[in-house]
Amino acid sequence: MKVGKKEFRSIWQDESDPATVNVIDQRRLPFSFEVLPLRSVNDVCMAIAGMAVRGAPLIGAAAAWGIWFSFLEHKGDKNIIGGIMNDAAMLKATRPTAVNLSWAVDLMTDVYEKTASGEALYAEALRLCDEEAERSKLIGEYGLGLIEEISSSKGGLPVNILTHCNAGWLACVDYGTALAPVYLAHDKGIRVHVWVDETRPRNQGGRLTAWELSNHGVPCTLVTDNAGGHLMQTGMVDIVLVGCDRATASGDVANKTGTYLKALAAHDNGIPFYSAFPVSTFDMTIDSPGQIIIEERDGDEIRKTDGVPENGFNNPVETLHATSLRVDIQSIYICQPGIPVSNYGFDVTPARLITGLITDRGICAANKESIKKILS
Amino acid sequence: MKVGKKEFRSIWQDESDPATVNVIDQRRLPFSFEVLPLRSVNDVCMAIAGMAVRGAPLIGAAAAWGIWFSFLEHKGDKNIIGGIMNDAAMLKATRPTAVNLSWAVDLMTDVYEKTASGEALYAEALRLCDEEAERSKLIGEYGLGLIEEISSSKGGLPVNILTHCNAGWLACVDYGTALAPVYLAHDKGIRVHVWVDETRPRNQGGRLTAWELSNHGVPCTLVTDNAGGHLMQTGMVDIVLVGCDRATASGDVANKTGTYLKALAAHDNGIPFYSAFPVSTFDMTIDSPGQIIIEERDGDEIRKTDGVPENGFNNPVETLHATSLRVDIQSIYICQPGIPVSNYGFDVTPARLITGLITDRGICAANKESIKKILS
Repeated sequence: MKVGKKEFRSIWQDESDPATVNVIDQRRLPFSFEVLPLRSVNDVCMAIAGMAVRGAPLIGAAAAWGIWFSFLEHKGDKNIIGGIMNDAAMLKATRPTAVNLSWAVDLMTDVYEKTASGEALYAEALRLCDEEAERSKLIGEYGLGLIEEISSSKGGLPVNILTHCNAGWLACVDYGTALAPVYLAHDKGIRVHVWVDETRPRNQGGRLTAWELSNHGVPCTLVTDNAGGHLMQTGMVDIVLVGCDRATASGDVANKTGTYLKALAAHDNGIPFYSAFPVSTFDMTIDSPGQIIIEERDGDEIRKTDGVPENGFNNPVETLHATSLRVDIQSIYICQPGIPVSNYGFDVTPARLITGLITDRGICAANKESIKKILS
Repeated sequence: MKVGKKEFRSIWQDESDPATVNVIDQRRLPFSFEVLPLRSVNDVCMAIAGMAVRGAPLIGAAAAWGIWFSFLEHKGDKNIIGGIMNDAAMLKATRPTAVNLSWAVDLMTDVYEKTASGEALYAEALRLCDEEAERSKLIGEYGLGLIEEISSSKGGLPVNILTHCNAGWLACVDYGTALAPVYLAHDKGIRVHVWVDETRPRNQGGRLTAWELSNHGVPCTLVTDNAGGHLMQTGMVDIVLVGCDRATASGDVANKTGTYLKALAAHDNGIPFYSAFPVSTFDMTIDSPGQIIIEERDGDEIRKTDGVPENGFNNPVETLHATSLRVDIQSIYICQPGIPVSNYGFDVTPARLITGLITDRGICAANKESIKKILS
């Protein structure tokens, strides 16, 4: 998708060095656009754990490259596979909720176990990234129909879409999951407008979703996480589109905390609520909400927040587009430093509140039968 | 309630100057405890509009003193009543949603119209503050029974209460509305624990509720506004207690944005949801959610946030209690400065989601008949 006028993916091999993979440092957005080179398993683990890269599909893609780096680091060892398997476990431990992480790591280690070939590993990581982008595009194409339908029923007036967290191209390799249909609709000339939940505590909505939508030219309005209920009650939302970090075989969706609250409001106001994700996000080993392990994160994510003082921008207008501005991102306490906090990263939206699941294999209802059918 | 070891109200006459009323500057909490003297109608308007004082009952109390200041400013004029009525309109315009504001201002102007006496005005403002504190205490006593009942049913284990925004003593003259039952329960030795929603965009939960609860010794945990749904789904909340800025004759409750989302989650999980307020908060001229005017506030409340850098505290531990620390509160952009935002201050929770209303005249159901009965 576009940053300024240039097309970008969220992860790409360095043109001059095959042993380097570049990502956008998402901790610096939207204040500064900086490319972070990854050159080792440790780089990948740090990038995932530190949230320089985040979003289930992108985490998977980065972890796949992590296994390629692991091969490069261990290829002189006697026990190469042992070294790779250790690194695989380390990669998987960086974020416990995202199922794509395990899935991508397992895919890569399987390839190595079968081929014992570095070339095969490299090709697999490349293929995984391309396929991830292709999957996002397919999600976009299937979801596009929903937006087109609302657009016609409104006589071409803007379709108001509410989204939570960041499920755009920054979370994926390209296009996004929840935002893929939005980009495709916008590029096709359908009028859309996105309500962006800021998504505390890390503000992925305010920092990433608003940034990527506005850089691509999609009209959007930032709101607090508290606002969606009022917007839905007063007819200002036509459809809710969110991503997913792990879906059960019954269609329950684990996604960024607060998703469940928006699903309740959509249900209460008769507004369609869709979760969009590649089928790799299904965890068919579980079939009820309580089986999903919910990650608890550092309390200082709540106590502190990052930002830039008014005088910290060289040119505030420029920050709407990619620049190499040197900005000074500061961290401040927004409550008493010693206050006890609790920080669950995700919640589970039960299938009964979900209108449908938009996948790379089509749209299905959030129930066992429809999911089985789409996976078969 | 206690700040450090000392008892405070949120508004009080200055001991040495009857023409000065003191309030706690709530914009500086929890980083710094500072007393703000009010000496004119303009001071009161600025304090309310700038949110140095906030919370429906406290706004009413401050506005009452505003009319007293108006009398002092106009008492030499030919048309005193004209001057007072102008100031009354100015005071009412500072915050459109809070019904207590109009109510208190009308009460004061009525007294002046009937008595034409400055002494009567002064006495009325004093009485209004004392009665506001008394009303909060009554709310606390009625609500206490609900907490006691849950405590017994849990065999004395801590009662987990979720609250949104600040409906504590800082919002009132003393005790609070939603928090009054909590303080009374705690003071009686009943074990309670409060989940405090941080309440974006102004963070009244994180800044005020967490501060006043911890200063009084009530165990509490700060969470993001997104977290309540997960807490309720997983059995970590026994009761939801919130305040109210305006209630309809049918029992619909306008309160800080996001309240509706918590009511939906409580309803979905069979958790009792109560709104607590003095009966002056009823607006009997309206009986449906759509009739409540929802205040839209400045977008920079969302784009920016206030806080203190790690090295900005003289002694972080001290900030858990009242101090006269000089701290440097900074304002930072937490998104792109130019991003469009929408900032509705309140939402309306429909009566059907409310278990009951805790008032200074007892607890009633959220319906016309019960409300009429309690008001008769």
